[in-house]
Amino acid sequence: MLPAVKIYDTTLRDGTQGEGISLSVDDKIKIALKLDAMGFHYIEGGWPGSNPKDMEFFKRIAECDLNQAIITAFGSTRKPGVAVEHDANLKALIESGVKAAAIFGKSWDFHVTHALNTTLEENLAMIEQSVNYLKKNGLEVIYDAEHFFDGYKANQEYALATLAAAQRGGADTVVLCDTNGGTMPYEVQEILEDVQNTIHLPMGIHAHNDCEMAVANSMMAVRAGAAQVQGTVNGYGERCGNANLCSIIPNLEFKYKVESIPGDNLVHLTEVSRYVSEVANVNPNSHQPYVGASAFAHKGGIHVSALMKNASTYEHIQPEQVGNKRRVLVSELSGASNLLYKFKETDSDIDAKKPETRRLLEEVKNLENKGYQFEGAEGSFELLMRKTFNGYKEPFSLQNMRIILELREDQPVHSEAVIKMKVKDNLVHTAAEGNGPVNALDNALRKALEEAYPAVNKMKLNDYKVRVLDEKAGTEAVVRVLIETGDGKRSWSTVGVSSNIIEASWQALVDSMAYGLIKNEEQ
Amino acid sequence: MLPAVKIYDTTLRDGTQGEGISLSVDDKIKIALKLDAMGFHYIEGGWPGSNPKDMEFFKRIAECDLNQAIITAFGSTRKPGVAVEHDANLKALIESGVKAAAIFGKSWDFHVTHALNTTLEENLAMIEQSVNYLKKNGLEVIYDAEHFFDGYKANQEYALATLAAAQRGGADTVVLCDTNGGTMPYEVQEILEDVQNTIHLPMGIHAHNDCEMAVANSMMAVRAGAAQVQGTVNGYGERCGNANLCSIIPNLEFKYKVESIPGDNLVHLTEVSRYVSEVANVNPNSHQPYVGASAFAHKGGIHVSALMKNASTYEHIQPEQVGNKRRVLVSELSGASNLLYKFKETDSDIDAKKPETRRLLEEVKNLENKGYQFEGAEGSFELLMRKTFNGYKEPFSLQNMRIILELREDQPVHSEAVIKMKVKDNLVHTAAEGNGPVNALDNALRKALEEAYPAVNKMKLNDYKVRVLDEKAGTEAVVRVLIETGDGKRSWSTVGVSSNIIEASWQALVDSMAYGLIKNEEQ
Repeated sequence: MLPAVKIYDTTLRDGTQGEGISLSVDDKIKIALKLDAMGFHYIEGGWPGSNPKDMEFFKRIAECDLNQAIITAFGSTRKPGVAVEHDANLKALIESGVKAAAIFGKSWDFHVTHALNTTLEENLAMIEQSVNYLKKNGLEVIYDAEHFFDGYKANQEYALATLAAAQRGGADTVVLCDTNGGTMPYEVQEILEDVQNTIHLPMGIHAHNDCEMAVANSMMAVRAGAAQVQGTVNGYGERCGNANLCSIIPNLEFKYKVESIPGDNLVHLTEVSRYVSEVANVNPNSHQPYVGASAFAHKGGIHVSALMKNASTYEHIQPEQVGNKRRVLVSELSGASNLLYKFKETDSDIDAKKPETRRLLEEVKNLENKGYQFEGAEGSFELLMRKTFNGYKEPFSLQNMRIILELREDQPVHSEAVIKMKVKDNLVHTAAEGNGPVNALDNALRKALEEAYPAVNKMKLNDYKVRVLDEKAGTEAVVRVLIETGDGKRSWSTVGVSSNIIEASWQALVDSMAYGLIKNEEQ
Repeated sequence: MLPAVKIYDTTLRDGTQGEGISLSVDDKIKIALKLDAMGFHYIEGGWPGSNPKDMEFFKRIAECDLNQAIITAFGSTRKPGVAVEHDANLKALIESGVKAAAIFGKSWDFHVTHALNTTLEENLAMIEQSVNYLKKNGLEVIYDAEHFFDGYKANQEYALATLAAAQRGGADTVVLCDTNGGTMPYEVQEILEDVQNTIHLPMGIHAHNDCEMAVANSMMAVRAGAAQVQGTVNGYGERCGNANLCSIIPNLEFKYKVESIPGDNLVHLTEVSRYVSEVANVNPNSHQPYVGASAFAHKGGIHVSALMKNASTYEHIQPEQVGNKRRVLVSELSGASNLLYKFKETDSDIDAKKPETRRLLEEVKNLENKGYQFEGAEGSFELLMRKTFNGYKEPFSLQNMRIILELREDQPVHSEAVIKMKVKDNLVHTAAEGNGPVNALDNALRKALEEAYPAVNKMKLNDYKVRVLDEKAGTEAVVRVLIETGDGKRSWSTVGVSSNIIEASWQALVDSMAYGLIKNEEQ
C-alpha cells in the first residue's frame, strides 16, 4: 500500500506557458477557487517577481475564503553573486504574502556553466542560501530541481549535491523535474530509488510530455516513493504540455488505490476539466482520457452490442465515476445496435425492425458523407427521426431571405437580414440588424417567430462553433456549424453544413428553433 | 541492447473507430503508400469480413507496388459451433488475398461466457483451429489476444491457456492487447515477463490510451521483450485512441536506441503525421509530442534567451531530427528575447534597442488581447513590423464593400460582393459572385487587383480556418480567421479578428494579398 499523494497544480503558472493559453487575473481566481473546491492541495498562482499581473493575483486570492488549498508562489534561487536579502526575486516571493513558495534551481552542470554563467560551487550556495532565507521568513519551501534527470545522467554526483544543498537549506519537499520531457519511466524509477539513498525528504515529480510520458513518469515516481505530483489541468503547458492531472488523479484513485484528493470529488473531474478549458478559451480535446467527450464513445457495432449486455466489456471504469458519460456514435461503421441505442435514448417507442429504421440509417450515412455530424447534434438527429417516422409538421417555413453587409472606410460593418416566412398560417416579412450576418439572421428569425411563438424569447444561443471541413479548398471550403441552444431548463445542439457559412448557420438556427418549439409544445 | 522492433500500423482499421475519423478507399490507399515509404513493417488494411469497402481496399492495394510493408487483414476466430472451413469471416480473410492476417480471440473468461455466450473449452478450440486453418492456407498469422491484461488479472491460468492454444495452432506472433486501456506500465512489465515463461513466440503489444498510458505501456512492453508494436498514426482510435506511433517510433530511436523503421526516415515523421491528419480531415493536435506545431514552441523569455545560447538547454532532441521546427512565440509572457528572435527570423536588420521595439511589443500584446494570434500568422506579424518600423506603403486601400446574400425556397444561396478600392492611383469598382460570402469577396478582391498586380493570379488560398473565440456569446461571438496563401514557391499565413466573420475574413484576405504582393515586388 503506497502512502497518500499531494496534488500540486501549476495550471496558473506553467500551464500559461502553453501555446494559445492566456489567463487574466479574474480567470486565475476563478480557476483557483474551482481547484480548491476539488480538494487540490497546492495551487501555484504565478511568479510574483516576473510580472505585475501575478502579484495582483496573490493580493486578490488572499482575500478569498479557501477550503484547504495552499496557494504557492513560484520563483528562482537568488542570482549569482547577489546576497539573498538583496535579491529582488526572493523579495517578491516574501512580499506576495503566500505561506509556501516553490523555487527552482539548476541541477545540470552544463546549465550552470552555459545558461547561468556561474561556477558549480556558487550554484550550490545559491540553492542552500535561497531555501534557507525563505525558511527563515516563515515559508514552507518546495525546491524544484530543474532538469534533474538530465543533470543526473550527465553528472550524477553534482546533481545529487544540488539536492543535498536544498536539504541543508531546510527544504520541506524536493521536486525532481523532467524539464525537457525526455526521460523514460524506467529511468524515473531507477533515479528516484537512488536519490532516496542520500535525500531524506518528501520527494515530488514534475514531468513534461515531450515523449508522451508525463503521466506515466508521474505514476512511476509515485510507485518509487514520490509524495507530491506537480501537473496541470488538461496537461496544459509549454511545448507538449505538463503532466495531466485529469489523468493522474483518477489513475491514482482507480488503478493505484492511493489517496490524493477526496475520492468523492472525482465525480466532478469532467466538469473541472471542461471549466478550465472554457475559462482558458481552449477547445477541449475530445479524446482526452477520463474527461474527453469521446472518452467513453463507442462506434463499432460489436462493441455496442456487448456494452448493451455489460458495460465493463469495453470500459475500464464507469464514466459516471469521473462525471463523464457513455455515448454511442452513429456512423457508417455502426450497425443497428447503435441506432437502437440512440432510439432508446430519445425515449422513442419506435419499432427498431421497421423498414424506416434502415431508411434512417441510410439517410444518416448520406448526411455524414456530406459533413453532417450527429454525434454532437442530438437536436438535429431527433428532428431527422421525427421526419422519418412521424407525421412531422414544421412550425414555420422560409420563403426567402436576404442579407446585406456594408463596409465603408473607417466604419464598422453594417449587417442587415430581411426574411419572409410562413409562421402558422401567416406570412411574416421582417428585418433586423446585428453585429454580424449570422447575428442579424438570428435576430430577424426571432422577430418573425415571437408573435406566434412567445417561447422563442426564452431560448438563448449558448454556443456557436464553426468547423472548416476541407480547409484546403480555401474560401470555397465546406463548413459545419454547431449551435447549442438553451431555455434555462434544458439545452440542445443542432447542426448545419454548407460551403456557405451563412446557409450552414441558417440550417442550424432553424433546427434549434424548431426543436425548441416542438419540445415546448409537448410539455 | 534490445532487439529490433516491428511496427504494425492499424490506422486504417482500429484508427477509423475513432470519433470523427472516416476514410474512403482512396484515402486508405494514399495513407498505406505513405506508411510503406516510411518503412512501416505491417499495415493492417481493414476487416474484409465486415464491410465491402475494406474488401475493395485489399483488391486495390494488391495492384500497388510496395517497398516492404506487409499488408494484413483483420478478423476474428471462427464463430462458436461452426467449422473453420464454413466460417464466413475466415473465408473472407483468405479471399482478401493478403499474405498475413491478424485474428483476435478472447482471453478473458468473463467475455467468453458473457459476450460470446460460449464455453471456455469451445473458445480454446476456436483459437487453435482458426489459427491453424489460416496457417494451412499459407498465411502468416498474428494472434491478437483481446483484453489479455484484464483476462490475466481475472483468471491467469485461463488467459495463458488461450495463448497456448494460439501457439499450438501455429501462430507466428502473439499480441497482448490492453483493449480497455486500463493497465499500468508496471503491470505490463510483470505480465509480459510471466507470459514468456510459457509462450515461446515473438510477442507484440496493442495498447489503448484510456489512462494516458498507451505509449508508456508499449515502450514498457519492448523493454520486457515485445518484438512488435501495434498502434496508429497520431494515436487515432476509439474512445481515447490507440498507442501513438508518432511518439513510439522516435522514442525507440532516440531513447531506447532500438531499431524499428530505418533511422534515416525519421526526418519525415512530422510530414507523415500531418499528411494523415489532412487525409483524415482532422485538425492536428498542436501539442502532440515530436510532430505537433507547438512541440518545439517556446514562450517564456528565460527559455528563449537560454535557447539562443544553446538549443539543448530546453529541447530533448533537435526538432529537425523528426522534420519539425523550432518556433518562438510572441505573447504577453514574452520578453524582448522573443521579439529579437522573430526579428532575426524575418531577416530584418532592425535595431532591437529602439523604442519602436517596445511599441511593437505593446501593440502585439494589445492585439492578442483582442483575440489576434501571431503565433500562426507570420504574414500579418511581418506586415505589423513593417508598419511600425518602415515607411510602409500599402499596395491598395478599400473605400467600401457590400455583400448581398439571397436565399429563396428550394434554391441555393446567391452570394455577391461589390467592392470599391484604390489600387495604385486608380479607383476600381467591381463585383463578383461566389459560392459563399467570403468566396465572393475573395473573387472580387482578385478581380480588382489583377490589372495592376498580375501576380495575384498566381496566389492561391491553401487553407481557411475559423475559430470562434468566445463561444458562449452565441452568434455575437468574436471569431478569428486564419488564412494560408501560397504562390507555388512559398506560403504565408495571415489573421483577422472580428465579431463579424466577414470582416475577420476580409482582414485576413487583405493581409494575405498585401503580404504576397510586397514579397513579390521585392524579388
